[in-house]
Amino acid sequence: MVAFGGNALLRAGEKGTFEEQLANVERTCAQLCHLVARGYDIVIGHGNGPQVGNGLLRQEAGKKVFGLEAMPMDFCGAETQGSIAYLIETGMEHVLRRAGLARPVVSLVTRVEVPADDPGFQNPTKPVGPYYMEPGKDGATYRQDPAGRGWRKVVASPRPVSIRNIDLVERLAREGYIVVTVGGGGIPVVKDAEGFHGVEAVIDKDLASALAAVTMKADEFYILTDVPKVYIHFHTPEQQALDTMTVAEARRYLAEGMFAEGSMAPKVRAGIYFVENGGGQCVITEASELGNSACGTRIIP
Amino acid sequence: MVAFGGNALLRAGEKGTFEEQLANVERTCAQLCHLVARGYDIVIGHGNGPQVGNGLLRQEAGKKVFGLEAMPMDFCGAETQGSIAYLIETGMEHVLRRAGLARPVVSLVTRVEVPADDPGFQNPTKPVGPYYMEPGKDGATYRQDPAGRGWRKVVASPRPVSIRNIDLVERLAREGYIVVTVGGGGIPVVKDAEGFHGVEAVIDKDLASALAAVTMKADEFYILTDVPKVYIHFHTPEQQALDTMTVAEARRYLAEGMFAEGSMAPKVRAGIYFVENGGGQCVITEASELGNSACGTRIIP
Repeated sequence: MVAFGGNALLRAGEKGTFEEQLANVERTCAQLCHLVARGYDIVIGHGNGPQVGNGLLRQEAGKKVFGLEAMPMDFCGAETQGSIAYLIETGMEHVLRRAGLARPVVSLVTRVEVPADDPGFQNPTKPVGPYYMEPGKDGATYRQDPAGRGWRKVVASPRPVSIRNIDLVERLAREGYIVVTVGGGGIPVVKDAEGFHGVEAVIDKDLASALAAVTMKADEFYILTDVPKVYIHFHTPEQQALDTMTVAEARRYLAEGMFAEGSMAPKVRAGIYFVENGGGQCVITEASELGNSACGTRIIP
Repeated sequence: MVAFGGNALLRAGEKGTFEEQLANVERTCAQLCHLVARGYDIVIGHGNGPQVGNGLLRQEAGKKVFGLEAMPMDFCGAETQGSIAYLIETGMEHVLRRAGLARPVVSLVTRVEVPADDPGFQNPTKPVGPYYMEPGKDGATYRQDPAGRGWRKVVASPRPVSIRNIDLVERLAREGYIVVTVGGGGIPVVKDAEGFHGVEAVIDKDLASALAAVTMKADEFYILTDVPKVYIHFHTPEQQALDTMTVAEARRYLAEGMFAEGSMAPKVRAGIYFVENGGGQCVITEASELGNSACGTRIIP
């Protein structure tokens, strides 16, 4: 299981054209070919932070300019699953061909179940979408931006508990398909008497990928980010790159605040979740390191 | 193989809220349960005309209001595959449960190959997206609207020649999965030295579904629209509903201009394509008729 970071697609400082995004995807996918060449079966999860952010802005703009109905966040997340999967399928096929490798690529639209009673729904904290002059009247929670830019919707970031069609994802991966799934952490749905219904929320994409990895009994879980290793005392004179860390060490570092929230901390937590639930090892690294089989920081039991 | 019309989702006169679209999807899917109950394996193709139209407007509005890069039409089409599949999966599960039926539902992001030398690329005719004061400077073709509303991009509507992962779609359907694919006629791609790359174009969704049906050797091909049968002399005193029509009759009626272009004519052509390429029969009808096994107009060899 490999989780792509958002910067695998949209990079800061770029305009985010289709060509730029495809070039970024190909750069990341080209490195994944090292794993393909080593014979790995591969499932790809990916983020959608910048993409769904832009999607929510476009909903707002479409309402303002053309009077279009603004669609909810789960719908926008589903849109990004389609478009990002299209980029990954296209780019992955290109780099496989260049590398002389043959693997089919397939992408599933994927809903991920979250608990209806997740505490996050009572106290949403994740700001999403545009800034407004005043709180919206759609029943959602709005918070004032501390920097004074206005009001912004806040949503829950609930814990993923099950992934729709994950049995099929596993089967296809074990047959040799490179499978794209849980895009943006998955479309969040809760169980009800009728089946499932969507909710406006953001599932942490590393945690959703970790759950996918555990459910499929993946041997390894790669979290691709923009640094080659995990550091303790990051950006201080005592900065130290870690080659391995046990789950106990990882927990201690987390407790000591060694890893930034919203950045490395959730990745380390996702790695712990994977290893504690039967996974062999979690590797946190940047894509360009994948050619070296001893790359990154390994979280081990 | 079942092709959903655009009105299965977004209906004229509605605002197009998520709730409205889900209710529309459930209404159509509830009728599909008749086919499920009869033991059919089912693959669903669907249109995206109103959705991708709104998507292109939102791209334009996002550029105007927030300075966001406008993404190309193939990217917007991929977005609609994600969001509409999400609606269909959700709605289909709800109605299956109500009907006491158990079938898994899965949706694949689907690219459809079109010929790079399709004549439509030299002479694009399908208007898409917003109206502009003057022709765009992005290298695409723009045409002046005859009604004076401004300039509009026109794209090709090329012939689909192959569907990526259709072997997998067939296999899953024959295992009992209800599979959603070729959304909006598929994301149009052309073959190049690297593999495939996307193009701005619109593939007729009935023709893409017909190709899917032929490739999978489907027994029957249902085209769902907003009339119970196909009519000749439609909207005249001689109007006559057809129970069956042979391929030869269908060709003659087409030549006589009995079916409106952009409406019934492409459906009849898709039906002919299916039957001429080994399909048993094509049924053109409205979803509410599916409870009657003799419904609609049947195109037969």
